[in-house]
Amino acid sequence: MLSSIPLSVAVVGATGAVGIELIHCLEKRNFPIRELRCFSSARSVGRSILFRNEQIPLLSLSSGCMQGIDLAFFCAGSSVSKKEIPLTLGQGVQVIDMSSHFRLDPDVPLIIPEINGDTLLSSHQLIASPNCCATLLLMVAAALHRHTPIKRIAVTTYQAASGAGSIAMQELKEETAAILSNQSYERSVFTHPYAFNLFPHNSPFIDESGYAEEEIKIREESRKILNLPHLPIHATCVRVPVLRAHALSLNITFEKDMPVDTAYSLLKQTSGVTVLENRKENRFPMPSDASFQDSVFCGRIRQDLSCPHTLDLWVVGDQLLKGAALNGVQIAESLLSFRFLSISP
Amino acid sequence: MLSSIPLSVAVVGATGAVGIELIHCLEKRNFPIRELRCFSSARSVGRSILFRNEQIPLLSLSSGCMQGIDLAFFCAGSSVSKKEIPLTLGQGVQVIDMSSHFRLDPDVPLIIPEINGDTLLSSHQLIASPNCCATLLLMVAAALHRHTPIKRIAVTTYQAASGAGSIAMQELKEETAAILSNQSYERSVFTHPYAFNLFPHNSPFIDESGYAEEEIKIREESRKILNLPHLPIHATCVRVPVLRAHALSLNITFEKDMPVDTAYSLLKQTSGVTVLENRKENRFPMPSDASFQDSVFCGRIRQDLSCPHTLDLWVVGDQLLKGAALNGVQIAESLLSFRFLSISP
Repeated sequence: MLSSIPLSVAVVGATGAVGIELIHCLEKRNFPIRELRCFSSARSVGRSILFRNEQIPLLSLSSGCMQGIDLAFFCAGSSVSKKEIPLTLGQGVQVIDMSSHFRLDPDVPLIIPEINGDTLLSSHQLIASPNCCATLLLMVAAALHRHTPIKRIAVTTYQAASGAGSIAMQELKEETAAILSNQSYERSVFTHPYAFNLFPHNSPFIDESGYAEEEIKIREESRKILNLPHLPIHATCVRVPVLRAHALSLNITFEKDMPVDTAYSLLKQTSGVTVLENRKENRFPMPSDASFQDSVFCGRIRQDLSCPHTLDLWVVGDQLLKGAALNGVQIAESLLSFRFLSISP
Repeated sequence: MLSSIPLSVAVVGATGAVGIELIHCLEKRNFPIRELRCFSSARSVGRSILFRNEQIPLLSLSSGCMQGIDLAFFCAGSSVSKKEIPLTLGQGVQVIDMSSHFRLDPDVPLIIPEINGDTLLSSHQLIASPNCCATLLLMVAAALHRHTPIKRIAVTTYQAASGAGSIAMQELKEETAAILSNQSYERSVFTHPYAFNLFPHNSPFIDESGYAEEEIKIREESRKILNLPHLPIHATCVRVPVLRAHALSLNITFEKDMPVDTAYSLLKQTSGVTVLENRKENRFPMPSDASFQDSVFCGRIRQDLSCPHTLDLWVVGDQLLKGAALNGVQIAESLLSFRFLSISP
């Protein structure tokens, strides 16, 4: 499908938080594009977005709108993906889905290129990009697992507003400004007060286990990507009043001893991971370090003295970049490099 | 020492975040006070504070300043406690120390009245009130441990600005306002950016284990209060941009199975704990619920499916109240009730 490089590329959901970043990534990484076609919800149609100094008009999805497109990114959420992706696939378009809708479908590969990019086949017309927290977690955990097998992962998250989209980021800023000036504020995205406050992640409970949907996504997607369908994974997801990078407290039990020094050394060699740490100055990764950065930051690696063969790690990454848009573009790059070992730029 | 009720009471550090709340608690709980003497740092001397509609002048500590005092609360931090408490004890004053300085001294009881108040003896002239996170954690954990012994606790914290004092709370507000209006801001309390950001707890590393001092306090103080000197306890402490209530994600492994329903039922009967939960509406305890409240809030109790005999719980409490000032006043109340079963009000 991707035979004629440069490509005609579509981005569905081009004005959302992930869509905007994805278009930035395509430009910044010089992805070989002949034509960029951008789709948005009806209320943005008529406006345009800037790509390589060119105004690209925003279109609405309609019958035949994917004609001539080689590759489409879907960044508009599960319901749009569910409805539109089958139609798009039917037109022979290669699809990368950023939503959760197809992620656990056994016929759809769920890909973090650095981890399981080698499982991609030319027959995979639809590829899913994983949940943001699962991606950040696995960028660190998979590198360690390759050295010493993992037995259990427990993760506690500190998730930013960006995970709920640009309007959630705007709402956090507006509600905070209102509180600081003693004014009232009507929220539209979050049910709960968010300024100077936090709450267990606002995803629904889809079974009786007490795990929220976000926590189940982390567990199931991580198992699929690691190809360890029964790996014990426990997640607790919390929304904190931070704008765009997620932080994770990881507690990983290994099959046998994993020295702290070995973990540091492995992560320092891991592509896409940056070790950031200065214990003397209490300097470890923060959302302010990771925001707008491609790398996933890791530090504060400790032996958990309460549990054998267990390490504790602190991980921070830009939820919109490696946690979403960047990973999507990297999947597309993998497709190109796997299929055409020589690309004409 | 507390023979003549009502008492002459001193508060050292009366203008700090904990001191202010402690004086509020004394008034609100109608603690039997004949005279309140308030001490502060030199820069506040000359000002006064309101107690029972009376202006109480702020004094500085000096030789003989505790004369006639029955009971002194120390809320001015470890260095003041270290220097001044021995002198105060020498004058026969009963002391309750809110700082960490004496907490692990084997001769000093470390008390949460609901948990180990029954270990207080009339010979205990100095009593320490524990670390805020240890207190909130134990209010929940001890109630469960009494039913089924605990084997391991892992806690991840979401700590508010209040733990670093009133100026830290002010700094968070000012830095946030500056960021929202694109202005620069010079921090004085925290090294790291705090507005819309978070960072591993800013306490020093006192040994080679990689645990920060705050995390070691939680472990060691919890062991002392539970009287389980070797209990495996793992803590990860993080400062989040919240003003005054701490949240904790608790993962507790028991010696044998602890059903979720049993845990809910035990906590609903626990004095000082409020179960707050509505799964359908995604409603669990938040800092905005717990701020200015005496109770420690708990909810989101789940069986941890990744680990046998393990529950996961979400706990939020006002760091300045049950996490500090309220517990100090409750210790004083225990002293009164233990020593004088009938108090003349």
